[in-house]
Amino acid sequence: MDPSRTIAALKELRELTGDARGAQRVAFTPTWLKARAFLASKLADLPVESHTDAAGNFWATLRGRSEKALVIGGHMDSVPNGGWLDGCLNTLAGVEILRRLAQESAGVPPVTIRLVDWADEEGARFGKSLFGSSACAGTLDLNEARGLRDREGIRLPDALRAVGIDLENVKASASERTHAAAYLELHIEQGPVLLDKGLVLGTVLGTFGVERHAITFHGQAAHSGSTPMHRRRDAFLAAAKMSPEIYKIAERHGGVCTIGSCTTQPGIVTSVVEDCRITLDQRHLDAGSLKTMLAEAREAASNFAVEGGVRVDWDRLWQIDPILFHPDLIALCDEATTEICGTSHRMPSGPLHDASEVSRSGIPTVMMFVQSLHGISHNKIEDTREEHLAAAIRAFDRLATKTIAWIARPGNTAIFS
Amino acid sequence: MDPSRTIAALKELRELTGDARGAQRVAFTPTWLKARAFLASKLADLPVESHTDAAGNFWATLRGRSEKALVIGGHMDSVPNGGWLDGCLNTLAGVEILRRLAQESAGVPPVTIRLVDWADEEGARFGKSLFGSSACAGTLDLNEARGLRDREGIRLPDALRAVGIDLENVKASASERTHAAAYLELHIEQGPVLLDKGLVLGTVLGTFGVERHAITFHGQAAHSGSTPMHRRRDAFLAAAKMSPEIYKIAERHGGVCTIGSCTTQPGIVTSVVEDCRITLDQRHLDAGSLKTMLAEAREAASNFAVEGGVRVDWDRLWQIDPILFHPDLIALCDEATTEICGTSHRMPSGPLHDASEVSRSGIPTVMMFVQSLHGISHNKIEDTREEHLAAAIRAFDRLATKTIAWIARPGNTAIFS
Repeated sequence: MDPSRTIAALKELRELTGDARGAQRVAFTPTWLKARAFLASKLADLPVESHTDAAGNFWATLRGRSEKALVIGGHMDSVPNGGWLDGCLNTLAGVEILRRLAQESAGVPPVTIRLVDWADEEGARFGKSLFGSSACAGTLDLNEARGLRDREGIRLPDALRAVGIDLENVKASASERTHAAAYLELHIEQGPVLLDKGLVLGTVLGTFGVERHAITFHGQAAHSGSTPMHRRRDAFLAAAKMSPEIYKIAERHGGVCTIGSCTTQPGIVTSVVEDCRITLDQRHLDAGSLKTMLAEAREAASNFAVEGGVRVDWDRLWQIDPILFHPDLIALCDEATTEICGTSHRMPSGPLHDASEVSRSGIPTVMMFVQSLHGISHNKIEDTREEHLAAAIRAFDRLATKTIAWIARPGNTAIFS
Repeated sequence: MDPSRTIAALKELRELTGDARGAQRVAFTPTWLKARAFLASKLADLPVESHTDAAGNFWATLRGRSEKALVIGGHMDSVPNGGWLDGCLNTLAGVEILRRLAQESAGVPPVTIRLVDWADEEGARFGKSLFGSSACAGTLDLNEARGLRDREGIRLPDALRAVGIDLENVKASASERTHAAAYLELHIEQGPVLLDKGLVLGTVLGTFGVERHAITFHGQAAHSGSTPMHRRRDAFLAAAKMSPEIYKIAERHGGVCTIGSCTTQPGIVTSVVEDCRITLDQRHLDAGSLKTMLAEAREAASNFAVEGGVRVDWDRLWQIDPILFHPDLIALCDEATTEICGTSHRMPSGPLHDASEVSRSGIPTVMMFVQSLHGISHNKIEDTREEHLAAAIRAFDRLATKTIAWIARPGNTAIFS
């Protein structure tokens, strides 16, 4: 197999669907459809059957001797002004693996090999990520999805209808899981961990559990000139104290905590802040540690509220448990990275991926990460050295071979169906 | 003189120009014009001449034996959903003083007495307070005023034209200062200081100097899941550290400091904050202390920026020096409050008032404060006990008598013209 074909295809795609500000493959837009047509063109000379499922996920299937299937996944969609690798490295590397397997086994590999391009992984337009994979996994909240609108006020059901998808029927995508025996995904790290350690590849243990809350402190508006400091009930003061505190909490437990947004009411220069709302995002691979991090944040917020004579409300925005990948596949991923790079490194994933949805639907899953330069993603400066991309594609191809053997192994019961 | 007439008038005005949400006498609106017509009706049976000047300030003049004038000021305008006392207590108390002086001296007091209702003290609609008094004082920034728009996009010059005022000519109002020998203003405190001390009245030493800045910290957006804590350049963290710090600065120097607004970019739950903008308002009666408070805030911001690997920019929004009232009039105000309440108390004013503009134009000035319940203003719950209002009106009337004598005193050179 030839990694340079994948790298060349990524560059072609960048030309075709990007501009000076970066990748513009936002799901359900004309540019996304163009990216999908590009993917189909790369599969045109392979002996695969392809179709789009009820949730808008695109599947290409290379039939094998067994119905049991190895699924390789990725997503062609991007955030607006995104990077050239996020999501499409996964799918386009999958194309080359399909090509190699089709050639080696004269078109009939020992198990069925499927490539899936998930619909709307990023959730950039409607604020809800992992759309296609959660529909397939059965975890999509249809009630929530029915109410989503983009910035122009267009409803998700209408945007879906425009590309031929009926929201009410998207969970029929679940039938694609039948016979899925393992799921693999290669992805850029989107963080600086491998870069800082001087490593090229990592084996992903799972995706962080997430607790996402809005915390609102309620104080009392008061004139900035006439209100002595000791008489203030300053909602911003209490909220501000949370920022250094979450760094301490994250350090104690080894997870990550982020205050991403702060809004103030009335929010004018001449008034003490009456209401201050911050968002808190906490993540950890260990469910118990995540629970403790949340409890500590709640306690700190209560203490700061009491200190400042303000009231505090919590509102859970979203929550997901940690998702641990399959131990056998983790071991195989370690083997593959060691064979190519001489070392292996296990790490959690901070961001969620389609692999999270696949894994929690019960399909044995693992992901491989490749180093990101600058530790930056969702930005046009997102990049990875070409020799690292080549190493990643080679190692991922090895992982596919090992996983096929694992699926076909007599007595392997760790399989969904 | 009869304070109950003033209190009854205040209640009438509340009925006429307020609703369930509070006072609605926003400057240059029909409700404000209604409030002004109400004021004129209260002056109808007095031997005064009245006119509106080039800046929209309304003047009522009771000619005395001398052209030298005692000016009593207030403002009928309010913020939206404002209180029943802020500004109109001043003017309506002035009406009763005019009445008493007109009766006592058979219509010809020893010096001329003028009542002024300043236009747009609050600046609620265009964000620029003290419009009429700064035009009269000559300190209004015409360039800035020309560019002001309200929330509906209406330009200040157009709003002024609709009520017969030509912005380009407002400084002609300065001629009203000719012969002005002293300026007095009674106002609710709008803060909790007198309430906390169990006092009814206070003598105002002057108005705080103000340093008003926007402080923007520039960090790096980064994924909340994939970016280790030690790799973050979190603009919100640096900004948040400013909040407890300004309380320490204010405590060290005895002034007040307020962070009234905080905005975050990109401001989403899944990203470390790249840019965080806070506003800082610092006030002190002593110019040196104010300068030190600002220097300490700058130093703290720089330190927090360095600690967090972020950059910080300062942008001065506004600045005014402390304005100290006239020592003779301060002493007279002390006498007047002592005669009515048995005690006197000197205090600075945190908010600016029309008196600040009058004072810095060179006219000897003093203000008297009366206790505010709850320490709250600019809100429908703004209130003062009726017996405290009555005491304030009586003491203010005494202050007027003493000031007339002071103006008329042979050898008094502390007079503008």
